[in-house]
This record gives sequence, structure tokens and C-alpha cells, in this order.
Amino acid sequence: MLSLESDSSVRWLAQVDQGLEEILIDHAHCEHKAAATAMSLLGSYIDDRELCQEMAEIVAEELEHFHMVLGLLERRGISFRRLPPSDYGKRLNSLVRPHEPDRAVDRLLVASLIEARSCERFQKLAQHVDDRELSEFYRSLFESEARHHTTYVRLAKHFADDAVVRSRLKELAVAEAEIISRGHALPRMHS
Amino acid sequence: MLSLESDSSVRWLAQVDQGLEEILIDHAHCEHKAAATAMSLLGSYIDDRELCQEMAEIVAEELEHFHMVLGLLERRGISFRRLPPSDYGKRLNSLVRPHEPDRAVDRLLVASLIEARSCERFQKLAQHVDDRELSEFYRSLFESEARHHTTYVRLAKHFADDAVVRSRLKELAVAEAEIISRGHALPRMHS
Repeated sequence: MLSLESDSSVRWLAQVDQGLEEILIDHAHCEHKAAATAMSLLGSYIDDRELCQEMAEIVAEELEHFHMVLGLLERRGISFRRLPPSDYGKRLNSLVRPHEPDRAVDRLLVASLIEARSCERFQKLAQHVDDRELSEFYRSLFESEARHHTTYVRLAKHFADDAVVRSRLKELAVAEAEIISRGHALPRMHS
Repeated sequence: MLSLESDSSVRWLAQVDQGLEEILIDHAHCEHKAAATAMSLLGSYIDDRELCQEMAEIVAEELEHFHMVLGLLERRGISFRRLPPSDYGKRLNSLVRPHEPDRAVDRLLVASLIEARSCERFQKLAQHVDDRELSEFYRSLFESEARHHTTYVRLAKHFADDAVVRSRLKELAVAEAEIISRGHALPRMHS
């Protein structure tokens, strides 16, 4: 259902064990970036009413998650700070084709894959950590990220035929699997 | 209370009479831009917890207003479309000093003045138009825009002393009055 072409590796779970604090801080940044992405898509395709409605909902939900993660950090005495991000988002966004309507299709599908990967990792994290609050927290986020994934794929079909979107999604999912498998030296949500 | 240094002119009300449709469309764009501004401030000052909380609320409210205006347009059979904006925002933003923390103070105070001017114009519009739905709509928006104005001024004090903020607000308000008095050839919310 999530269109991903790979599962997260054991390597990443080792990073979770070693750098959970940094991963939690990075997660807060990821929620902010997800909100900013939805806001940017709304601005770019402002004459698409359904897209604007969906993006407004995603912006509000991601900002709510951002504050939920900040609250979690606070309860654990972890101070939120700026962190250099992993290369994941940058590498994925470099695959976006420059001309419309391809650009719209790609931006929406890249967003859909980031949501799918987050979703997959939240589930892995929830199963992996021996920490009830964290485990329940990540389970609670799973459903909305999965819904966002589906919304982004559906909206891509405003800009290209169903078959074109499905084939491009497959292509980008293969690239995403390759990018996530490269990982990142520092512990991050998408390392 | 609103820190403005001038009232909207009769010239603008004449533009309202001649180009109400365009002003309503521009209003939708203004609500989107207000949300995008709050999102951008959240990203720039992400380690300021109170600022992030307030910006998230403003983002959500402005996007709700954006959709309220789109609904109003729809009920009136006016199709929402892209419009070249007035120079108002660009001119105001050119006054933002480049270096932190002055930059933060100025970005927040410019945002506060735009909210104040919108507030003042909503009130003028509500009194001026002979159209009950529109009049009630603009009255309903008044309170939240006034609150946003106050929030932005309060947040500016995270980056400078109270007296410095008040004197800079006065300076920028004088500049704002001059900019809005120049107007714009096309009928816009801030023409």
C-alpha cells in the first residue's frame, strides 16, 4: 500500500539505539519540513481548490505533530536545537523534473514517498524501542502519515493520467530505496 | 491600539466600488500570503518555542480564512485566479534590516503592520459596502487580525528591548502610512 521498494535496514536500527536523542530532534525538524512542503505546494498550485484544501489540512496536522514532538522532547529534558539534516530530502528533490506539469507530479510524488518512508520508519521504531510512551507515540502518528501518502498520490493525478502517475511513482520509489539505502553518517529519521 | 499612522483614504473606497471582485480575489491571496509569512517566520526562528506555537496558530487561522474567502467567491460565481499583487508588501519588506536580531524585529513588526492595515481596511469595507454577507464577513475577520497584530509586536520583544521595539514600530508605521498613501493603480486589498 505504501509504494515503497525497500524495508528499513538493521543499520538504521543500530543508529536508533546509538542516537535516539538526535533522531527525536531530527523528527521535530522533519514535521516542520513536511508542513513547509505542503505550504509551498499550496502556493505553487493555488488555483487547484482540492489541492489547497488538502494542503491546508496537512499543514495544520504536521505543525500539530511538530509541537507534539517538541512536547515529547521537553518531557525528556532534551533541548530542541538546529541539526544538519540528512541528505535524503535533498537527493530526492533533485529528481524533480523542472517543467510543468511534470514538476507538479514529481513534487507531489516525492512528498508521498517521504510520507511513506516516515510511516514505515515510525512503525519500525514503535516495534523496536523498549519505551512505552515512544512506542505509542509513533503508533499514533502512523495513520496520518499513511493518509498523507495517499492524498499526495491522488493529487498527482490532477497533473497527469493515472497510468503515468503510477509508472512515475514506481520509478521514484526505486530511486528512493537506493537513496535511503545509502544512509547518512549521523543518526537521523531518514539516515 | 493598531499602531497605524493613517486612515485609509477615500481614493481606496472608490477602488472598492469599481473593483470589488478583484479586491475579493486579492483578499484570498493576502490570506495565503499571511499564512506563508507565519510559516516562514516559524522556520527562521524555530528554536523560539513561543514564537513557533503562535506562528502555528496563525498559519492555521489564515489558511482557514483563505478557504472562507474562496467559499465566498464561489457563492458569488467569481472564479479565483492569480492576480499581480500590489507593491505594498514588497515595499514594506524592503525596509527589513538584513542582520539579526534587527531582521527578526523588522520582519515581525512589518507582519504586525500588515495585519493592522488589513484590520483597518476590513472595518472600513464592512461599513462601506451595501452587502450584508460581505459586511458581516469582514466584521468577523476583524478580531483575529487585531489579535495577530498584537502577537507579532509581542514576539518582536523576544529580539529587542521593549523601548527599542516601540520606537522601531513607530518608525515603520510612519513608513507604512507613506507606502499605503501612494496606493496602486489596480484595485487591491492594499492599494
